[in-house]
Amino acid sequence: MRYFIEFAYDGSSFFGYQIQPNQISVQEELEKALSTILREPIKTTGAGRTDTGVHAKKMFAHFETNQDLEENLVYKLNSFLSENISIKRVFEVPADMHARFSATFRTYEYFISPEKDPFTISSSWQTWRQKPFDIAAMNDACKILFEYDDFTSFAKLHTDNKTNICKIYKAEWEQVGNQLKFTISADRFLRNMVRAIVGTMVEIGTGKLKPNDLRKIIEDKYRNSAGVSAPAQGLFLVDVGYEF
Amino acid sequence: MRYFIEFAYDGSSFFGYQIQPNQISVQEELEKALSTILREPIKTTGAGRTDTGVHAKKMFAHFETNQDLEENLVYKLNSFLSENISIKRVFEVPADMHARFSATFRTYEYFISPEKDPFTISSSWQTWRQKPFDIAAMNDACKILFEYDDFTSFAKLHTDNKTNICKIYKAEWEQVGNQLKFTISADRFLRNMVRAIVGTMVEIGTGKLKPNDLRKIIEDKYRNSAGVSAPAQGLFLVDVGYEF
Repeated sequence: MRYFIEFAYDGSSFFGYQIQPNQISVQEELEKALSTILREPIKTTGAGRTDTGVHAKKMFAHFETNQDLEENLVYKLNSFLSENISIKRVFEVPADMHARFSATFRTYEYFISPEKDPFTISSSWQTWRQKPFDIAAMNDACKILFEYDDFTSFAKLHTDNKTNICKIYKAEWEQVGNQLKFTISADRFLRNMVRAIVGTMVEIGTGKLKPNDLRKIIEDKYRNSAGVSAPAQGLFLVDVGYEF
Repeated sequence: MRYFIEFAYDGSSFFGYQIQPNQISVQEELEKALSTILREPIKTTGAGRTDTGVHAKKMFAHFETNQDLEENLVYKLNSFLSENISIKRVFEVPADMHARFSATFRTYEYFISPEKDPFTISSSWQTWRQKPFDIAAMNDACKILFEYDDFTSFAKLHTDNKTNICKIYKAEWEQVGNQLKFTISADRFLRNMVRAIVGTMVEIGTGKLKPNDLRKIIEDKYRNSAGVSAPAQGLFLVDVGYEF
């Protein structure tokens, strides 16, 4: 039987989601907890991977077992796992549901603190400055993203991606309390893509670039045309869409 | 001239607000920053003190200097101070305004995470459990607080307080997202009082005590009648009231 597991993690203390030799990863902690509690070796397939320091408020993986799962499995997993990972639910799915390939969209949020904020040091980009960001210009730039689908300029170089084509469904900046929040949804994301877009948008918000400069950056299909990547700690995977 | 300074801090990395020998305190960091930037020894008087690990979103202190303060003093202080303290504003007040004695009320918030939450480890009490808290019972207990003014049962023993009389203006529990939030306002608070009240209220929320048991606890005027103190990391000083 195939099961989905929904979970959240604070990325600060992990070297990313995916298992790697000699580094603490979310996937390894998760598989260790499942294998210990179910008393059989469990391998998981995640909805994607997040880089070192990136957080997830809603992430999914699938795994297989022939056991009927206990009702209090979630509670047991949470007791076993460190405080940095929280399990939300475990539920059976049809055998052809795949955590990665069945996902129809992913949504990320990125948080910027334009004022010094001691409470969001590990969950936002502290870019506090004296002049406010031009959110209207940043939102004008968002609209330009919808006109394109090849985001090679925001892709990490030298990956083995066959295509850099992504369909962006939503991209929006808003003021939330004393933070700036960027929400972006797409069918898929290239590695480092959200952080590269945020880094470029911040240059638009500070007036270093105009919204329209984004067109040339995208059309260049050249990573160095875009801004530097925003730091990992502001980025959260917040949703993955499935048709259950 | 007398100035007020408004600031916030994450209490995790400080041994409380007040200066103590051989420990890092908020007050010491603040006075070091003011003295360095104003190039004269500056002593501050805080609105009160918070214990080790307790946070403040809005805290005030006063200090004196004969200098006219630069417009960008706040920016300079923030650049000088560590990421755990944020200065909001510095403003002149009448010479008889006193950060501690002119305060008409103080408001605290306390956060509980009834579900495991990797993002609030240092900002809430992680008391995740399988049964929900009875918030209605906890709010019934809040109403009882208004009937009393002697809170000796919630006071730290052996302090040099002349009186344990406090006037409580507000006390309320509410669900905010996946957290429980307690808000309490009073003209003054005894040392450890909010955490002792929260510890007792949690016993009411889990059914170990009934709301009415709070009457006897208060009337006993005996600290050991009340519940254990809730941990420091869930507590935030969020407001201090002045008539400027």
